[in-house]
Amino acid sequence: MPQAQPDRGRADPSPEALQEFLTGLAAEIHARADWGKVADYIPELADVELAQFGIAVQLADGSLCHAGASEVGFSIQSISKVFSLACVLGRIGEQIWQRVGREPSGSRFDSILLLELEKGIPRNPFINAGALVVTDELLTGRTPRDALAEIIHFIRAAAGDDAIHIDRAVAMSEQATGDRNRALGNYLKSYGNLKNPVDYTLGTYFHQCAIEMDCLQLARAGRVIAGLPGAPSILAPARARRITALMLTCGHYDESGDFAFRVGLPGKSGVGGGILMVAPGRASIAIWSPGLNATGNSRAGAYAAEKLAEFTGWSVFG
Amino acid sequence: MPQAQPDRGRADPSPEALQEFLTGLAAEIHARADWGKVADYIPELADVELAQFGIAVQLADGSLCHAGASEVGFSIQSISKVFSLACVLGRIGEQIWQRVGREPSGSRFDSILLLELEKGIPRNPFINAGALVVTDELLTGRTPRDALAEIIHFIRAAAGDDAIHIDRAVAMSEQATGDRNRALGNYLKSYGNLKNPVDYTLGTYFHQCAIEMDCLQLARAGRVIAGLPGAPSILAPARARRITALMLTCGHYDESGDFAFRVGLPGKSGVGGGILMVAPGRASIAIWSPGLNATGNSRAGAYAAEKLAEFTGWSVFG
Amino acid sequence: MPQAQPDRGRADPSPEALQEFLTGLAAEIHARADWGKVADYIPELADVELAQFGIAVQLADGSLCHAGASEVGFSIQSISKVFSLACVLGRIGEQIWQRVGREPSGSRFDSILLLELEKGIPRNPFINAGALVVTDELLTGRTPRDALAEIIHFIRAAAGDDAIHIDRAVAMSEQATGDRNRALGNYLKSYGNLKNPVDYTLGTYFHQCAIEMDCLQLARAGRVIAGLPGAPSILAPARARRITALMLTCGHYDESGDFAFRVGLPGKSGVGGGILMVAPGRASIAIWSPGLNATGNSRAGAYAAEKLAEFTGWSVFG
Amino acid sequence: MPQAQPDRGRADPSPEALQEFLTGLAAEIHARADWGKVADYIPELADVELAQFGIAVQLADGSLCHAGASEVGFSIQSISKVFSLACVLGRIGEQIWQRVGREPSGSRFDSILLLELEKGIPRNPFINAGALVVTDELLTGRTPRDALAEIIHFIRAAAGDDAIHIDRAVAMSEQATGDRNRALGNYLKSYGNLKNPVDYTLGTYFHQCAIEMDCLQLARAGRVIAGLPGAPSILAPARARRITALMLTCGHYDESGDFAFRVGLPGKSGVGGGILMVAPGRASIAIWSPGLNATGNSRAGAYAAEKLAEFTGWSVFG
Repeated sequence: MPQAQPDRGRADPSPEALQEFLTGLAAEIHARADWGKVADYIPELADVELAQFGIAVQLADGSLCHAGASEVGFSIQSISKVFSLACVLGRIGEQIWQRVGREPSGSRFDSILLLELEKGIPRNPFINAGALVVTDELLTGRTPRDALAEIIHFIRAAAGDDAIHIDRAVAMSEQATGDRNRALGNYLKSYGNLKNPVDYTLGTYFHQCAIEMDCLQLARAGRVIAGLPGAPSILAPARARRITALMLTCGHYDESGDFAFRVGLPGKSGVGGGILMVAPGRASIAIWSPGLNATGNSRAGAYAAEKLAEFTGWSVFG
Repeated sequence: MPQAQPDRGRADPSPEALQEFLTGLAAEIHARADWGKVADYIPELADVELAQFGIAVQLADGSLCHAGASEVGFSIQSISKVFSLACVLGRIGEQIWQRVGREPSGSRFDSILLLELEKGIPRNPFINAGALVVTDELLTGRTPRDALAEIIHFIRAAAGDDAIHIDRAVAMSEQATGDRNRALGNYLKSYGNLKNPVDYTLGTYFHQCAIEMDCLQLARAGRVIAGLPGAPSILAPARARRITALMLTCGHYDESGDFAFRVGLPGKSGVGGGILMVAPGRASIAIWSPGLNATGNSRAGAYAAEKLAEFTGWSVFG
Repeated sequence: MPQAQPDRGRADPSPEALQEFLTGLAAEIHARADWGKVADYIPELADVELAQFGIAVQLADGSLCHAGASEVGFSIQSISKVFSLACVLGRIGEQIWQRVGREPSGSRFDSILLLELEKGIPRNPFINAGALVVTDELLTGRTPRDALAEIIHFIRAAAGDDAIHIDRAVAMSEQATGDRNRALGNYLKSYGNLKNPVDYTLGTYFHQCAIEMDCLQLARAGRVIAGLPGAPSILAPARARRITALMLTCGHYDESGDFAFRVGLPGKSGVGGGILMVAPGRASIAIWSPGLNATGNSRAGAYAAEKLAEFTGWSVFG
Repeated sequence: MPQAQPDRGRADPSPEALQEFLTGLAAEIHARADWGKVADYIPELADVELAQFGIAVQLADGSLCHAGASEVGFSIQSISKVFSLACVLGRIGEQIWQRVGREPSGSRFDSILLLELEKGIPRNPFINAGALVVTDELLTGRTPRDALAEIIHFIRAAAGDDAIHIDRAVAMSEQATGDRNRALGNYLKSYGNLKNPVDYTLGTYFHQCAIEMDCLQLARAGRVIAGLPGAPSILAPARARRITALMLTCGHYDESGDFAFRVGLPGKSGVGGGILMVAPGRASIAIWSPGLNATGNSRAGAYAAEKLAEFTGWSVFG
């Protein structure tokens, strides 16, 4: 007979309490005004107004609390790696692990160093080299347009919102400045770990990074990762669990261990300032603030993530 | 008003069902006979009979299920790092993070490479260099004997068993062959990140690694880490959560990401073949099988951990 | 008043004695039949017959001794880096050292690792990344065709032979398989250390590597590096000395120290199996045998270099 | 019939001209007052007065020119590695290369990083790890006192001066602060590449580094390395040549390539501010100025080396 599940932390907050907390948090973050610095490698990111913060929390009961600039679209950038990984796992399953590892890299997101030591097998699918391999696999037997369509369709289905789209200007700018990623692509190719022409894979990758979403859309899309009741059935629960495991160990580049330690929840950050975070079975959380810290993660976003985890008691560690 | 906690996975198994599973698992592991290789750098480990497997699971309701060689003592080795970290957090709190990081290393347990790149600050407290720093901090103002006593007392209190002791022969052998650790100690010293004479810190470290426990004792000691009801109040819950976060991201050396991915539970392995694993709020698990895989983790032990997680549905990822 | 110059070693051999030695050496190398393995990354190199050896020695007195396949053309590959460096020094002088270092790399010729540690400044002009920077500098304000013409003209002038040309088939094949070099180029670009479009710089580089010469031509071209009397005045003696210094410390990738130790003369090897070696003021030596050792240097060629140095007593070390 | 040896550079200067140059050079260096910073890891080095410069040049004709503080004793430190290598080559010959490589390291003198990548075989005998291996080999079957005596006797014989001795205070201080070297020693031991107890090898090494010499003594001792006429017959010419090859490629840590490029002569520097430099067959040169540059080489010393090479036209590169 099933037993009652032991509960180490506090119970979940009510939507009302959570809403009040989020409103206060947004005000606090504007008062602190500790924003970091926006990414400046492309004009579309460099021109984003720094002093912005949005947050949205999708609860298991279906309620969606939010505060701040939660309806301002932003470039999801590396958060797209979560969804492309979900797509590739749906397509070829665990075979993908022959081409990419599952270990934290302890390195910058675009480091090429470990790739040399490990002969072309990227450490994990959330550093750039690993994400390129995932996207390359999605291109097997298909055009870039079709592969991209699959990622977008997955995200639209997850969010239940067909308005989600790619910001072409961002994609073009990425293309124009993506020398480091182009280096990674050619390097993977030299080890035989890129099947398609480098330009195809990179082009697809730059476009998936240029997907624009707001916090409301992202929090809703995260339901399938968080395994919330009522989420569309487009990702097997076992897969979702494994993706969240990777988010926890590898989701914040060389700050992943620290995020796990301080926040206690799996998350994936993007250079556009977004963070997708999940409390498995309980909530899907989207946070956005475009200013970054030295490691390339949203500065105010990470602060908000920690405060939210404290308030709710959510932690995968009990 | 508190809400009911959403439950994504199955409910916990009954003690009877779990016991039956463990008995079957022990039999299966002997039938597979895929044991790996015992550590051979000291005779005390090299001489351990290979074909052994024990497991013990302490549940939240107080029941303790076990199977196989669960009462055979083994050298806990690196699992001691969990307890020395708990001690140092109790003593000086978060100050310890000025001397050691919280990021996965992506490297072998005794690598000196990253230590050079990071100027004497070890990546995390679970690689050898980091554990030396923790032990060194515990020696502040005290003799090796007293520091060691604190670790042992913590473990005895956690397990509720005063019979737990150090195997002096193992400690002596470690001392005789510990050149790599001695190199790490001197290297830390050269960066000013070792306060005590290298021999004091190393001596204490070698002795803490030589603590002998069996699975029953280890599973009971793990209650404080898992935050089980009825565990002795010797570790603040917030601290326990953070230690489990580190176990998840850094507990299995350069196989940590893979363990998180496949098993989904925080664990810490030792070269003696032991694994301490926790399902926060639900269970504390001790597994032992002395044969190791290429990464230095128990081969049959990791297999058992994965099977147990599958059976119980326990995962920090939902 | 000028003093007589002390002479530590033997005097130079007579052309007759040297010719006899070379003939014997060629025979010995065929008898040993220890050829190594031809480079196989492009068909033009993979299809070269393995059991070939040629040598040519241009002496200060103008005589040119040679033996074996000394009139068979081969792809000079990385030996071209010596000449492109000479060109760039002539064009912008010591400014080039702001873009590339002068230290041995201790790494493979196409390693990207150090490039990351050193933020886009290649260690020296004889590893691929460094040679790309040199070629890129030669492209400043000119077309690839013109930059290439400058290198070819320099070599033709040095050798006094206008028949020297580029093997277009080799250049095309390099282009088709140059993913690693393309990665290096994009990587340099990402650090701002490539001024021209990556494809321009790479295209020029692939063509310079595809220059075809035989030992006679190469030995004559080497006169300007060796500073032989009667060499065309196209390279300042101080420049030549500095180029030979780099050949000695960096000319054989991660085997440079060993070559200096065993042979004692500056040399530059290429993956086509060629070696250009100089005894400053005394001789310019070209050796070719297409089979390579594990480090990518000509196997029989290195043996011949050592034997020749022993016979002649030539050594920059006295 | 032997031919006249071609002479690319100028003839050697007369002793009188050289003496005048050296006197002017010493004055110029004091006028520049660009001294760098003395090593400060032990009081004996930290307390040396910064503004000092000495130089001595032993010519092939037997004359010895000198200027500045050429009779002030200093700690030869790493220059001792040249002499311990000479001793070990005399004792076991080329077998030593099974324990240590001959490649430039491209790294700091006390780096442990490459040692890990290369599994305990140091890159060359002039980085600390390599010198420890050489000293360890000299200890085979002998006491530290006897091994040390061999090194001292070699140096005394080379210099023709029995007054050369070890500064015990320096040796004691090295011992007290040598954590990094102790780390290297233990690390080598862990790979089985140290035969004697770490303390024996380190103790011997610290004492050989603490040998005190002045420029006159060092220039005279260098005759055997430079292969000057009249040098005592204690080192085979072929050995001397190979030692100078290593000095050229590896004598100045990660500035070796640059020194070869700018100065063109083999040299070996020490952290005490000394440089032993040779123009093979022509001169042995000792330079001392205690202030170091960022790479740990004498700042004014390197400047003087370059000026001397310019003045004399001495260069192994023609």
